[in-house]
Amino acid sequence: MEIKNGGIMMRIITISREFGSGGRELGKRLADALGIPCYDHEIMDMVAEKYGFDKNYISHVSEKDIRVFYPTTIAHRLIAPHLMTQQSVSIAVSEHQLIQELAQQGDCVIVGRSADIVLREMNPMNIFVYADWQSKLNRCKNRADGSEHFSEKEILKKMKQIDKERAAYRSLFCEKDWGKKESYHLCINTSGKEIKALIPAVADYVRLWFGQE
Amino acid sequence: MEIKNGGIMMRIITISREFGSGGRELGKRLADALGIPCYDHEIMDMVAEKYGFDKNYISHVSEKDIRVFYPTTIAHRLIAPHLMTQQSVSIAVSEHQLIQELAQQGDCVIVGRSADIVLREMNPMNIFVYADWQSKLNRCKNRADGSEHFSEKEILKKMKQIDKERAAYRSLFCEKDWGKKESYHLCINTSGKEIKALIPAVADYVRLWFGQE
Repeated sequence: MEIKNGGIMMRIITISREFGSGGRELGKRLADALGIPCYDHEIMDMVAEKYGFDKNYISHVSEKDIRVFYPTTIAHRLIAPHLMTQQSVSIAVSEHQLIQELAQQGDCVIVGRSADIVLREMNPMNIFVYADWQSKLNRCKNRADGSEHFSEKEILKKMKQIDKERAAYRSLFCEKDWGKKESYHLCINTSGKEIKALIPAVADYVRLWFGQE
Repeated sequence: MEIKNGGIMMRIITISREFGSGGRELGKRLADALGIPCYDHEIMDMVAEKYGFDKNYISHVSEKDIRVFYPTTIAHRLIAPHLMTQQSVSIAVSEHQLIQELAQQGDCVIVGRSADIVLREMNPMNIFVYADWQSKLNRCKNRADGSEHFSEKEILKKMKQIDKERAAYRSLFCEKDWGKKESYHLCINTSGKEIKALIPAVADYVRLWFGQE
């Protein structure tokens, strides 16, 4: 089923990404190139504002706290109640509701938040962004501000941990694995490449994929 | 190290593909869009002609006979001699030599033949083409001529077998797995899509990837 808004097919693009691969930058730049909004961290702020949660707490549990009970029709694994916290349940449900509301408003790019699964009934185009360890390490080092002093080993450990959490979060309500190419329509390896330089072609690809050119 | 020919960086694109995903068509059309040659089945004919092998026999062993000994610097797994045939060794070595010669002549697209590994010192751009089972099945049915009558079950079995052989062939001389996104620069899911419609964007992506735009 293709969801249409006023007769025009909606272009919903989701970006899943390995930590340090430049996926967030790719999402933002792609949205700019297509002239549509991009939702990333903003989603957490919106959830906090709309549902009255504490912003810092949301930031802590979102995509990190895998002890989430997800009692909707798209859930297929229910986690044992003793592993859950009521608030993390509420946040996940609120976040997913907001993602659906945002997508129903019109074309957009959504980064992370397992949006490819949350929105699957809207037939989004799902992109996965990845890179080799060295490129991800370089990207993390370049974007760290002067006050952060982590060793390469510490950064690598953190990168692996975050990707593991993303995969675990997704696995709660979807059988298709996070990061496996079969779960996505296009997988982009950014190793050694500038994201900015690739954007015009990625934007073209998205337009052609939605048959709007 | 970037191999250059007359001072211009060479654009070598390799296409690896799941059987039935449309990878061959994508390779041919991409080469046309870029105005460069595409080598696919022709390679086997050239090997037969150049080295005096029987065409039918080559067609039988190429990418199918995994009992190949590959005694060059890029080999990392040597198969027990009792599993080899001398002729399959000769054919694989000849094929790989020819692929290197073709690539050194100038920009080109090479489909299959583990060209991404054979040419890795020339820094090719490596694309993987895949699709879901239903799309691959439909593609296989559509391209079968009237004289072929296979059941869906038979086609699926054949598809799996061919992909398995491709993966096994590659595994002889490379640690990076066939079909894993980490082994490629771009992975394109053709499920439910017309290859032709996607080509302009893929060609753009290749041009940008090589920094020639």
